[in-house]
Amino acid sequence: MQLSDSLNQLIEALRCQPGIGPKSAQRIAFHLLERDRKGGTQLGSALTKAMTAIGHCQTCRTFCEQPQCDICLSTKRQDSGTLCVVESPTDVLAIEQTGQYLGLYFVLMGHLSPIDGIGPKEIGLDVLEQKLSQGGINEVILATNPSVEGETTAYYIAQLCHKNNVGASRIAHGIPVGGELDLVDGRTLMHAFSGRRVVTQE
Amino acid sequence: MQLSDSLNQLIEALRCQPGIGPKSAQRIAFHLLERDRKGGTQLGSALTKAMTAIGHCQTCRTFCEQPQCDICLSTKRQDSGTLCVVESPTDVLAIEQTGQYLGLYFVLMGHLSPIDGIGPKEIGLDVLEQKLSQGGINEVILATNPSVEGETTAYYIAQLCHKNNVGASRIAHGIPVGGELDLVDGRTLMHAFSGRRVVTQE
Repeated sequence: MQLSDSLNQLIEALRCQPGIGPKSAQRIAFHLLERDRKGGTQLGSALTKAMTAIGHCQTCRTFCEQPQCDICLSTKRQDSGTLCVVESPTDVLAIEQTGQYLGLYFVLMGHLSPIDGIGPKEIGLDVLEQKLSQGGINEVILATNPSVEGETTAYYIAQLCHKNNVGASRIAHGIPVGGELDLVDGRTLMHAFSGRRVVTQE
Repeated sequence: MQLSDSLNQLIEALRCQPGIGPKSAQRIAFHLLERDRKGGTQLGSALTKAMTAIGHCQTCRTFCEQPQCDICLSTKRQDSGTLCVVESPTDVLAIEQTGQYLGLYFVLMGHLSPIDGIGPKEIGLDVLEQKLSQGGINEVILATNPSVEGETTAYYIAQLCHKNNVGASRIAHGIPVGGELDLVDGRTLMHAFSGRRVVTQE
């Protein structure tokens, strides 16, 4: 049985989603056609709209429909003088959900990876350096991922900070809260030991 | 952090897909925006196109962009005189992939389920009865799923066939080829015993 062209195109297009293989794509296509045409139509227009309407914030590079995002526009955040550097907008989301950090962000949209042709300019470090040289930032918190590329990127940005006389700090790596010591991997345990803090007498 | 409206709408809309929860929807939305805007745009237009262009074959009710599908239009298939009744277009696909069945199909797009308000008319049994009364069909192969609803539907259609003097048969249920006897559930094993066939001497 030859599937119709539109159906084949739909199944092929569904596979652009991470974690969706050929079988899942077929299942989703038939589900939408058989049981949820309204949902399928809504998804179609939501995708079309989002792909054109969502751009990047001029100041922090996160996803945004306006020229600048709400966080960058907040004067309270601007006055904080701290800037947190993360790899992706989902990291901003995770940090915002804690409700504890009240400074600005800078979203790299990736990390340094010379082998893939991703240099300082591709992750917006020219924009970041300009921001640092303008003043108003006292501390840069480096919250890139604890991978080799993330560490390299953090180190590179720390150098930029020193050049512009801005303090730089790296978020702590160690045992996750609620985690069990014997289930944690060796590298995390090593980080936990090297990052130990003096317990002060009260 | 407030996500932008288009992004929230996209994440919500992605959840119409089976197996996609809130976390996966968010991951997919960010993946498409960060790394595959082209794929996202293509998926958007493929969905919009498929949801409007794909209708049902007038004769067998499967998904089809023309008034009748290729299988129903084939004279070779029409001459076979056999009609296979299945619950969904994916069943047609599975049977066609074996390459062994060369007759016509009738797709119910569901099964009888009075509790959900799905009666004979909702699964097109009026169309099927008209087809049976017109002649040209010698055998109806009932290939609905071996669930309670599937069995009930098969029984109901068998009655329709008898009324119109058309032979009806049910596909065999038993041990799957390559399956292990001790891993098969009791009901399947029972079916395998009651459906046993005489081994003829050669």
